[in-house]
Amino acid sequence: MAEPARRPGRPRDTSIDERALAATRELLVERGFDATTIQAVAAHSGVHASAIYRRWGSRIELIEEATFPGLSPPSVQPTGNLHRDLRRFIRAYLAAFDAPASRAAAAGLLAYHQASSRPRPPDLYLRVSARPQFQDILRAAPPGTIDLNIDPDDVFDMLLGAILTRTLLARITARHRPIERTVEMIIRLLQPQPSRTVNQDT
Amino acid sequence: MAEPARRPGRPRDTSIDERALAATRELLVERGFDATTIQAVAAHSGVHASAIYRRWGSRIELIEEATFPGLSPPSVQPTGNLHRDLRRFIRAYLAAFDAPASRAAAAGLLAYHQASSRPRPPDLYLRVSARPQFQDILRAAPPGTIDLNIDPDDVFDMLLGAILTRTLLARITARHRPIERTVEMIIRLLQPQPSRTVNQDT
Repeated sequence: MAEPARRPGRPRDTSIDERALAATRELLVERGFDATTIQAVAAHSGVHASAIYRRWGSRIELIEEATFPGLSPPSVQPTGNLHRDLRRFIRAYLAAFDAPASRAAAAGLLAYHQASSRPRPPDLYLRVSARPQFQDILRAAPPGTIDLNIDPDDVFDMLLGAILTRTLLARITARHRPIERTVEMIIRLLQPQPSRTVNQDT
Repeated sequence: MAEPARRPGRPRDTSIDERALAATRELLVERGFDATTIQAVAAHSGVHASAIYRRWGSRIELIEEATFPGLSPPSVQPTGNLHRDLRRFIRAYLAAFDAPASRAAAAGLLAYHQASSRPRPPDLYLRVSARPQFQDILRAAPPGTIDLNIDPDDVFDMLLGAILTRTLLARITARHRPIERTVEMIIRLLQPQPSRTVNQDT
């Protein structure tokens, strides 16, 4: 009630932003997702709660900016070597999720968005998706290395799943496979197939 | 304090169990993961909280049994038709996550296990994994349809990722692809490769 819906543009005093974001990351790691409230961030950072609310509409937006700020684009310039480009891309992608604060926030954010009745939260997903960067890598690959019949989006969906599994399930599955295995799976999906040996049943 | 660590075997009066489990599923759907506490289940089911605690050590165990009780084995008997078997397997696997209560619980459970300091929660994962059933399907496939050099566990990891993406991210990505696309991706990973066109960089 104290703060009406007006939200001015991002303020010039970035030190206040940075203090709040840093405190958010620290709280996520030290006390977990549920305990990382606006009030806790205010107490931890010394930034007034009202100032935090002016910059971020909710604790979810604050946590998202604190943990997944610069995922897009992963800074991988395609070299044309598909294997090497994919490996660098997957490493960069995983590294973004692998920061302690991101790791502490990811499942909680997912649970929030899953339970949310908002139609969908495009901002975070678009930042996290990196779908265009993946397509840039495929475009830079030498002719003949990628099956022209494959939909890159289908392969990216599989890659996203592999990243999710590594990020969210590693603790639960207790599987810690070399990144190279994921790279090889993606290469395998992309490469031209000689003939469809699939049994098409009717 | 009231309940020491002794937990007798699963009681014979299954109607009490069933009432608590049904109430848990209803609460998950109606009020969400966070609101599904032992107290709320007790109030909703008429089963005393102390009786619930005697059967399940925590609300997490209760929610896990209420939502992912019979995932293993998915009841898919391999027929030897790889495409059809995989499609049925993936459908059954997805269906288990697709029940409204499971959908409401999955991300919350993941967040809990992610934040938990317990070494790992094997029970739920082993129930959810279905890794052996996947291998049964591969063993029943005709010779020549599956690359002998591929590690089935690597492919299962990819399948698990695809299932996770469909279950947890569909709302966020707003992508709703036919299941057949996932089936085809898995077939593609499995089938024999003519020659490695991968660029091995040094």
